[in-house]
Amino acid sequence: MSGNTASSEVNKTAHEFDKTNLDSLLSRRFFFAPAFEIYGGVAGLYDYGPTGSALQANILDAWRKHYIIEEDMLELDTTIMTLSDVLKTSGHVDKFADWMVKDKVNGEIFRADHLVEAVLEARLKGDKEARGKKVEEKEETDEKKKKKKKNVKSEAVKLDDKVVEEFEYILAQIDNYTGPQLGELIKKWDIRSPANNELSEPVEFNLMFQSDIGPTGQIKGYLRPETAQGHFVNFARLLEFNNGKVPFASAQIGKSFRNEIAPRQGLLRVREFTMAEIEHYVDPLDKRHARFNEVRDVVLALLPKDVQQEGRTELTRMTVGDAVEKGIVDNETLGYFLGRTQLFLTKIGIDAARLRCRQHMANEMAHYAADCWDFEIQSSYGWIECVGCADRSAYDLTVHAAKTKQPLRVQQRLDQPRTVEKLDVQYDAKAFGIKFKKDAATIKSTLAESDKERLQCIKDEMDKDGKSLVKCADGKEYELTPDLVKINPITVTEHMREFTPNVIEPSFGIGRILYSLLEHSYWAREQDKARGVLSFPPLVAPIKVLIVAISNDPALTAVIHDISIKLRKLGIASRVDDSSASIGKKYARNDELGTPFGITVDFATAKNGTLTLRERDTTKQLIGSTEDVLKTVDQLVKGTIDWEGASKVLQEYSGVQDVE
Amino acid sequence: MSGNTASSEVNKTAHEFDKTNLDSLLSRRFFFAPAFEIYGGVAGLYDYGPTGSALQANILDAWRKHYIIEEDMLELDTTIMTLSDVLKTSGHVDKFADWMVKDKVNGEIFRADHLVEAVLEARLKGDKEARGKKVEEKEETDEKKKKKKKNVKSEAVKLDDKVVEEFEYILAQIDNYTGPQLGELIKKWDIRSPANNELSEPVEFNLMFQSDIGPTGQIKGYLRPETAQGHFVNFARLLEFNNGKVPFASAQIGKSFRNEIAPRQGLLRVREFTMAEIEHYVDPLDKRHARFNEVRDVVLALLPKDVQQEGRTELTRMTVGDAVEKGIVDNETLGYFLGRTQLFLTKIGIDAARLRCRQHMANEMAHYAADCWDFEIQSSYGWIECVGCADRSAYDLTVHAAKTKQPLRVQQRLDQPRTVEKLDVQYDAKAFGIKFKKDAATIKSTLAESDKERLQCIKDEMDKDGKSLVKCADGKEYELTPDLVKINPITVTEHMREFTPNVIEPSFGIGRILYSLLEHSYWAREQDKARGVLSFPPLVAPIKVLIVAISNDPALTAVIHDISIKLRKLGIASRVDDSSASIGKKYARNDELGTPFGITVDFATAKNGTLTLRERDTTKQLIGSTEDVLKTVDQLVKGTIDWEGASKVLQEYSGVQDVE
Repeated sequence: MSGNTASSEVNKTAHEFDKTNLDSLLSRRFFFAPAFEIYGGVAGLYDYGPTGSALQANILDAWRKHYIIEEDMLELDTTIMTLSDVLKTSGHVDKFADWMVKDKVNGEIFRADHLVEAVLEARLKGDKEARGKKVEEKEETDEKKKKKKKNVKSEAVKLDDKVVEEFEYILAQIDNYTGPQLGELIKKWDIRSPANNELSEPVEFNLMFQSDIGPTGQIKGYLRPETAQGHFVNFARLLEFNNGKVPFASAQIGKSFRNEIAPRQGLLRVREFTMAEIEHYVDPLDKRHARFNEVRDVVLALLPKDVQQEGRTELTRMTVGDAVEKGIVDNETLGYFLGRTQLFLTKIGIDAARLRCRQHMANEMAHYAADCWDFEIQSSYGWIECVGCADRSAYDLTVHAAKTKQPLRVQQRLDQPRTVEKLDVQYDAKAFGIKFKKDAATIKSTLAESDKERLQCIKDEMDKDGKSLVKCADGKEYELTPDLVKINPITVTEHMREFTPNVIEPSFGIGRILYSLLEHSYWAREQDKARGVLSFPPLVAPIKVLIVAISNDPALTAVIHDISIKLRKLGIASRVDDSSASIGKKYARNDELGTPFGITVDFATAKNGTLTLRERDTTKQLIGSTEDVLKTVDQLVKGTIDWEGASKVLQEYSGVQDVE
Repeated sequence: MSGNTASSEVNKTAHEFDKTNLDSLLSRRFFFAPAFEIYGGVAGLYDYGPTGSALQANILDAWRKHYIIEEDMLELDTTIMTLSDVLKTSGHVDKFADWMVKDKVNGEIFRADHLVEAVLEARLKGDKEARGKKVEEKEETDEKKKKKKKNVKSEAVKLDDKVVEEFEYILAQIDNYTGPQLGELIKKWDIRSPANNELSEPVEFNLMFQSDIGPTGQIKGYLRPETAQGHFVNFARLLEFNNGKVPFASAQIGKSFRNEIAPRQGLLRVREFTMAEIEHYVDPLDKRHARFNEVRDVVLALLPKDVQQEGRTELTRMTVGDAVEKGIVDNETLGYFLGRTQLFLTKIGIDAARLRCRQHMANEMAHYAADCWDFEIQSSYGWIECVGCADRSAYDLTVHAAKTKQPLRVQQRLDQPRTVEKLDVQYDAKAFGIKFKKDAATIKSTLAESDKERLQCIKDEMDKDGKSLVKCADGKEYELTPDLVKINPITVTEHMREFTPNVIEPSFGIGRILYSLLEHSYWAREQDKARGVLSFPPLVAPIKVLIVAISNDPALTAVIHDISIKLRKLGIASRVDDSSASIGKKYARNDELGTPFGITVDFATAKNGTLTLRERDTTKQLIGSTEDVLKTVDQLVKGTIDWEGASKVLQEYSGVQDVE
């Protein structure tokens, strides 16, 4: 890519990363801004301006091509407003919650775990100060925690050695405490609000936005917290669309919502966000992937769970092929998506050196998940989860099928018929009906859905005791006796196999990726700390080409508008800057917008038909005929040549000073 | 376009439009389905499947290119969750409501106006039957009303002539009644629920979904009912991004929500929908458009308000240029967007013969709007509003500016400085301060914001009565006297002009356009009513090319996968059908998916390297080398040649029967 080639020639690390400068640039160039800013805004809600929207659209377009088009995934667009029953089944109504505590005096609300963490860290810091030690910020989570504890001040107070040890133990497993346990910690260690007031007991707060559907008040709905459930409830239709075969994948890009208790950290923790999710359905007995070879040699920076359990954080660089072979990554399909995701993130401009794959530890992982890896990206907020790649097993499809009585299963013709030992249930229809009346159907369906082990158990009880108490789907128990029901082993030849597919889910937080990309792309010119540049790859740059004239001469203005039309025909997003600013200022503005190329029209254009072409990072310029320059720009934007390639077609040029 | 050229050779009207067949096709091919269908669904919420999603994505892509890219609009992505204050200012909290009535016995809820309309129409129909007249369905709204009144049965009961007249009068202005007026009609005419029960008084129901933001319960939010307010609250940033100049436009594609009382009519009245909205900001004194000439000759089918007021519905075909010149359309910018929208809708496949531009009548239009035209598309539901083009005047920016005290105005340097007569307010600072104390600032700011007329009025009162009672921003009245305040005429030279721009808003309901397109594209083969075809233009077809082999021979399967990879490289969405179905069945399935082209691999392919190319509508086939066929497909999909053009490059072919 031209950006990368060119960037090797400039010093992008002349100045330390300056978040204040970046924030100012992002606001000034309207990448994003607090929503309803003129009304004072609301924490956790942001609007994307023209630059942010275009950057997001380009990231999503690249995502769609990289995943959906490349792999013929079935795209969906399901509703955000979700019936409460669906999210009850998925577990979100009961479990998608955080614990909050309230300042008993001023009513301020905090996330309990974040507050405990911030206070204990402040005390540890104060202890170090009191002991005269240098306070080393832990590299990993430094900025992230600074944010969290911004109102919690540390005082230089020495702690007992035992207390230090206990605080460190608590912090190491802060994510594992239940609400009541957090309440005990708060009491035991007299943890108070930043205003030094007492705190309430932790209370659970569901993170879904709730609303009523329709005017009756009878139908509850939630804004979806993920797009995934919209895939699962449509599984039967998707399977049919795919001619009944697995593996296949569905994909969806859309907004999801989490009503965070106290969102901070800018775009990284918001209440409304764009997700891109893939649900890849596989045979649980065969998680190989047909295109695994294509990613076998992709190198990942792995942080496996056993390393973390030893309290270490060093990364193991390893190919996807090796990781799967050694059993570090559970299966080929999961490995395939890890490899593809590494390729995607680096393609759009994420710095590979600040990207790692962290495996979930046993206590972090949902109980149903077989394996889960997060792509974490390092920014000034620390290492942040941006993509989760989980093997969700058959959990979601199973619970929805059980709840709705719909068969969310795959039927597969067996190459070889197979013989199976089963237990067959026979009823004395008349006697059974007389005894159980309207409950008969419930009992029958319960037995029909029981597995072999359970039937064997009932049979054994009846054989032994002459009866068996069976708890049925209606929650009641019924007494079965051998005169009513006979359970006998039979041998069946099966031509079909039926199974619930497992789901491998790569789930992308687009806003987090976008923000990380902004930090990774930002640097400042060596000669001036305030002259920021955003070095986006052409693939995702909001605008690909800046078009400027050397002066406001009407003849030149006509030319730049003509070039603008020509670029539009080539499908290249360009922007004419015909403001009264100096050309240096225009270039500086261009660099802040991350526009990789600039076409300058000068008086030679009118005379010789030449244009100059500027590369953003190096500020180097080339000159050539209008036709050659436009053709070169087209190739540069498509990525078929880089700046070095462009230099072979066009001449070097040094006629215009790139300063104000 | 190839589709259109080819279609002239086939008889698409051999069978009457059959909605049942179309509905079955749309469900079977998963264009869309009720959301959470396996949970029983909820009225007004639909999920788009792979075909519907792709069709929608292609329509949106065409929209983005036609409007945003072509006109350098500033794209936005603002939040769906909206602070209640914003929607209070815009008027939605108070006024965005429908009137509902409840069946007093079974609790069923109805939209009051829809129920009154359905009952009166049923009675008029019954009257006609009783009089032995043929019941002519009004062409225009026939199907639409059938849906509305589906539970309201008509009985052959003769009505008094006067009653007939009054019913017709009520129906003609059914949209104009307030809730209490609807209540009176219900009492006066003993209108009952379909179950023949009494109805409650009409109650207002706000159509916005409400929720709480954050855990405190203090911050109310609504899901936006339109994307427009997200543009307006960002106006200051957008203007700055555009270097302070108008005209310019912002654009946004996104989900909006309306909590309909009783949604019916499939995709046409839903609770969650995708909108695409443009807010074009213009100088109120200059609503010309720089590119007006480009649409001057576009012909619109107009239904102006004066024609409707006379109870007529015939359309006037007229160019945009004439419509603006004759003052039928208010201004050039509005006319420009009408022309552009006509071009857009027909480009994506909407039948121009079923498209009209209906002007809002005075009583339909928001009080602040200068002019408003709806693009209505005719389908089996009648004429449905799909795009609204409104001149919203300066209303929105003015009310947000007033509420937030933020200047949402444009400052424009005047070419010629101008001299203005103003009224200058001078205070006796000390005496004023002593008299009004802490209220002094409020009074001063009220006067500072008063216009010339108001100041003149205060001055006149003081001159005449020696005092003036002035109501200030705090709602209180203060007595001003000439010893404290002097108001005198002065002459000022102004170099800048300041104004609030007017907003021209084209607003697109994407789901309604998509559904209309499905109806306009649907027809059935002459030889078999059940063999449906969706004749999408290649531009929006979900899949552009079907790839099939004449048999399941592994050699041929390898070839079709190779072609699939080649098409992907060309950026063309294709679908391999390697199922075990017959080739006739594959073609039929392809036609139902609306895929315009099919590539068939047969044994000649292996031998001679030839492929055949099938056109969906005519089922005609051409044959040529792999290279020629792929090149031709590329051109067909891009629209640079049509089928006739393709026939000049490739040979005619009639080797494969296009039936099962």
